[in-house]
Amino acid sequence: MGTTTTPTRVFINEVATRDGLQNEKTFVPPPRKIALVDALSRTGVAKIEVTSFVSPKAIPNLRDATEVMAGITRQPGVVYTTLVPNNRGALRAIEAKVDEINLVMSIGEKHNLANMRMTCDESLAGFRDVMGTMAGSGIRVTGSIATAFGCPFEGEQPLDRVLWATETYLNLGMVGVTLCDTVGMAHPRQVDRFCRAVRDRFPGVPFTVHFHDTRGMGLANVMAALDAGIDSFDTSLGGIGGCPYAPGATGNISTEDTVHMLEACGIPTGVDLDAILPLARGLTTLLGRPVGGQVARSGKRTDLHAFPQCA
Amino acid sequence: MGTTTTPTRVFINEVATRDGLQNEKTFVPPPRKIALVDALSRTGVAKIEVTSFVSPKAIPNLRDATEVMAGITRQPGVVYTTLVPNNRGALRAIEAKVDEINLVMSIGEKHNLANMRMTCDESLAGFRDVMGTMAGSGIRVTGSIATAFGCPFEGEQPLDRVLWATETYLNLGMVGVTLCDTVGMAHPRQVDRFCRAVRDRFPGVPFTVHFHDTRGMGLANVMAALDAGIDSFDTSLGGIGGCPYAPGATGNISTEDTVHMLEACGIPTGVDLDAILPLARGLTTLLGRPVGGQVARSGKRTDLHAFPQCA
Repeated sequence: MGTTTTPTRVFINEVATRDGLQNEKTFVPPPRKIALVDALSRTGVAKIEVTSFVSPKAIPNLRDATEVMAGITRQPGVVYTTLVPNNRGALRAIEAKVDEINLVMSIGEKHNLANMRMTCDESLAGFRDVMGTMAGSGIRVTGSIATAFGCPFEGEQPLDRVLWATETYLNLGMVGVTLCDTVGMAHPRQVDRFCRAVRDRFPGVPFTVHFHDTRGMGLANVMAALDAGIDSFDTSLGGIGGCPYAPGATGNISTEDTVHMLEACGIPTGVDLDAILPLARGLTTLLGRPVGGQVARSGKRTDLHAFPQCA
Repeated sequence: MGTTTTPTRVFINEVATRDGLQNEKTFVPPPRKIALVDALSRTGVAKIEVTSFVSPKAIPNLRDATEVMAGITRQPGVVYTTLVPNNRGALRAIEAKVDEINLVMSIGEKHNLANMRMTCDESLAGFRDVMGTMAGSGIRVTGSIATAFGCPFEGEQPLDRVLWATETYLNLGMVGVTLCDTVGMAHPRQVDRFCRAVRDRFPGVPFTVHFHDTRGMGLANVMAALDAGIDSFDTSLGGIGGCPYAPGATGNISTEDTVHMLEACGIPTGVDLDAILPLARGLTTLLGRPVGGQVARSGKRTDLHAFPQCA
């Protein structure tokens, strides 16, 4: 599979409180969100996408973004990032003194219209405004390429469009780019090809991948990305974070299953699995529904059983 | 990842009617089992593990093994195999004119005691008897190495013990060997190492891998095995097939998700996904419970949605 060096350490970015909670039926009140972020801050994750400075009408579940950002206790070494959909959100993010903001556009035009209610051109014009607003704030700006591995309306997206979006983001001044498999269409060979292509074309740029497990390929895609040299992964506690275009499907790849697999493979994640697992199990109570992720149910592969337990 | 050539075509062995049904709470009556096997026979799977010639007391769900084998309509090109635990089972298999039988021993001594109620020495002595019985029958004999990637009582098993078991099986005259991740402990790096080791040590021997998705790593392990040169996979419709030592966990890797991923990756499986998916969905009715597998719920990655469906 080529000559790329597999990373010897990876970074886990926890997105449950943003990507996960935004689509839940239940509104999680701010004190519980704050408690969850604070608990996650102590697990060793590299970054937490705390919330989104989005219109409360668009995403009522995250209407408490300012309160949550103000209420959390920041741990040194953890990056606290938020999604920002427009200039108004950027101003709120600056006020909240976040470490980083993340901008998102779907490269599938139709998905961008459905999800952001903007054409790609309109999204990019908005990004220019935001970059202007952020200039001098000292806050890093990253960009997510949604539907990078496929659009539910248009199908697979050409690699060239991913390369174009990456270049556009970088030219705008973004300091990192995330390739998002928004609706779980990525497969390992595609991940290998796309990840190698962006790394070859844009050496030195920090790339992140964001996978959903919609079709069961999430962790296989993690390994493919890892072997293609990617060292940064968006994951979600309990695998929460739905995809409205695939009813009944699971959401994001779960933090605990990803950490469990990578650590088993000898790739340090910095995350304490024993600290993460109780939080994943606690989500069932918090959300009032069973959540995804296998390891929280099955236990770790190193959990031995008494003999003969049920022979 | 080395110089091994990735297979350009893989073989799917369906195990749902044996590994899947044996642990179900519901007894599936013989006509329904026969209908399921017959439907599976028309999907393009290479092999079907139809049933097990085991004692009806040990596995009541498969007490109809003889009736089921007699009732199915065999398709040319499909191998019909059965599990055989002892000489008595071997005699029944010969009478049933199966194409192949499969013998199983756990290399974890404690798991073999719990599962087969025999020491490994006793299992191997039994295998010798069976090989004598099968001689001249024209029926192929293969062997499964259970707990090859870890035992729930003893933990990870040394590669040397897998190599020893393989050599022992081959010396007994078995014509193919399956490495089984009986309780879902395998991780991709281990799969890579073990698969390369057996292929290097025993060139030309047909190896199969049998993964469970207990900890979410099932499809990642498929890719690792594939890239290590393995071209034969045991899979189970709907991912049925439980692991009694991991309550709440999912079972075998699902046939439909495996086929979906491999075909997406451009690796032909011979299996018609559109024929498999309705069968997977039908299992929920047959078993009276939701079954595993993502693609049966989410649809294929190539299933496009109308715009704007739920913007």
